[in-house]
Amino acid sequence: MAWKAIGVFDSGVGGLTVLKEIMKVLPQEDTIYLGDTARVPYGTKSPETVVRYSRQITSFLVSRDIKMLVVACNTASAVSLTALKKEFSIPIVGVIEPGARRAAAVTRSGKVGVIGTAGTIKSSAYAKAIKRINPGIEVVTRACPLFVPLAEEGWIDNEIARLTAQTYLKGLKEESVDTLVLGCTHYPILKGIIAEVMGDGVTLVDSAEETAFTVAEILGKKSLLRPTSEKGNHHFFVTDVPAGFIRVGSRFLGERLGDVYQVNLDDEAHEEEQAGEDKQTAP
Amino acid sequence: MAWKAIGVFDSGVGGLTVLKEIMKVLPQEDTIYLGDTARVPYGTKSPETVVRYSRQITSFLVSRDIKMLVVACNTASAVSLTALKKEFSIPIVGVIEPGARRAAAVTRSGKVGVIGTAGTIKSSAYAKAIKRINPGIEVVTRACPLFVPLAEEGWIDNEIARLTAQTYLKGLKEESVDTLVLGCTHYPILKGIIAEVMGDGVTLVDSAEETAFTVAEILGKKSLLRPTSEKGNHHFFVTDVPAGFIRVGSRFLGERLGDVYQVNLDDEAHEEEQAGEDKQTAP
Repeated sequence: MAWKAIGVFDSGVGGLTVLKEIMKVLPQEDTIYLGDTARVPYGTKSPETVVRYSRQITSFLVSRDIKMLVVACNTASAVSLTALKKEFSIPIVGVIEPGARRAAAVTRSGKVGVIGTAGTIKSSAYAKAIKRINPGIEVVTRACPLFVPLAEEGWIDNEIARLTAQTYLKGLKEESVDTLVLGCTHYPILKGIIAEVMGDGVTLVDSAEETAFTVAEILGKKSLLRPTSEKGNHHFFVTDVPAGFIRVGSRFLGERLGDVYQVNLDDEAHEEEQAGEDKQTAP
Repeated sequence: MAWKAIGVFDSGVGGLTVLKEIMKVLPQEDTIYLGDTARVPYGTKSPETVVRYSRQITSFLVSRDIKMLVVACNTASAVSLTALKKEFSIPIVGVIEPGARRAAAVTRSGKVGVIGTAGTIKSSAYAKAIKRINPGIEVVTRACPLFVPLAEEGWIDNEIARLTAQTYLKGLKEESVDTLVLGCTHYPILKGIIAEVMGDGVTLVDSAEETAFTVAEILGKKSLLRPTSEKGNHHFFVTDVPAGFIRVGSRFLGERLGDVYQVNLDDEAHEEEQAGEDKQTAP
């Protein structure tokens, strides 16, 4: 089983920040990443729809023989993890639990802020996870719908980004949280402006690194780790045409992406053919 | 044939502004609206994917026996109209041609600006349509990706909306356009701030009204109009759960929505069952 790959999925490119940390902690592992770029974003959609998409993607990755699944999307982690664990027998890890664990470990004042998409915040998944670890921690949350389009527009350090961050984070500042969970894989791109608005006393928590440690821990316990002498290969699938993903993805991954294949999840029968036809190589 | 409904589709709620104008011009007509809320937005996706979605939706509406199709989404109009016209035999109208016609009629200086999603602007559909009408008109375009999330956040008259509009519209102002096409169904919601930034001398063109006139003209020519003594019924379908559409939709339509049904376009076989199960009534 150890030879199999680690499956990672996200609604789009954001999950590449999680993949990046996994590649850092476990360079010997193969990975298969799927970005659902034809249906992105998930954060504005209903839990029912996000669960349906997550199931389709997990089926696809499981059919490619993965030994473990990482749900790198905060919204999908928040609403679909229970359903996926019920349906599939491989180990499945989301980004919420690791992020919550880190936040609970980091806070001194016992006041933690969480920002995320509308879907993630509405689910209360972070608040529940943090309180499971330490019921004494007070959790203040805020949905920040404009952060993803701002990050995608590349407006991460101008007056519009600053005013938007001030508007969204005002309540969290007033509540004097000392820890802020960046509960969406796009938000680390806005880290600079968020840190500036929150001020020096506040620690920003990004789930990616902690998630990678969790993956290593689980694979270790199950004796599913590859020997460290190996060097992992990385495959990428997307549901829209690969061009945009390739362009933006290297920024998120911090290195050049390999071949990216397009798959049609609506119509599993054709996917091999599609993948073959629509392969694109990063320049 | 005249008894049949007019089909209208959009990636989400925005197309309801077009439906509203159709209902005003042709109150006797039945309409069937589909909002692809599970896959919204289209403006950031590839032409290939938008064409695939548009085909699925058109098949669905045609199977419900429509006499005419209105593509109320600017992005879908820009990239999929040719493919749809080739495949389906009913009359099909988009919002680009009517908007272009209005802009060409309105401009005095011969300098027209067009704003829209990345997909619409990249297609050059408006520029081509305007130049087909009058090759002497100069067209200046700009994609405004943040306008849709701003409109959906309800930030239509604050400093963030103002700065965003100033940033996006700066080039168009400098080019001294006297007419600006709002090439996305969400943009009329930001009309106030756009008008303020562009200044008094600039006429804003919204395709919705002109599209409704075009629909009336085509149905009239083909003798497909219902007698004006009748009163049309209006049905709504969405691909995500109806709750969000119902909540936001009435703002776009300007009146209470009737029953809204959910359909699963991935899996046409189940749609009737789904529709029956997931019906929700506006409160």
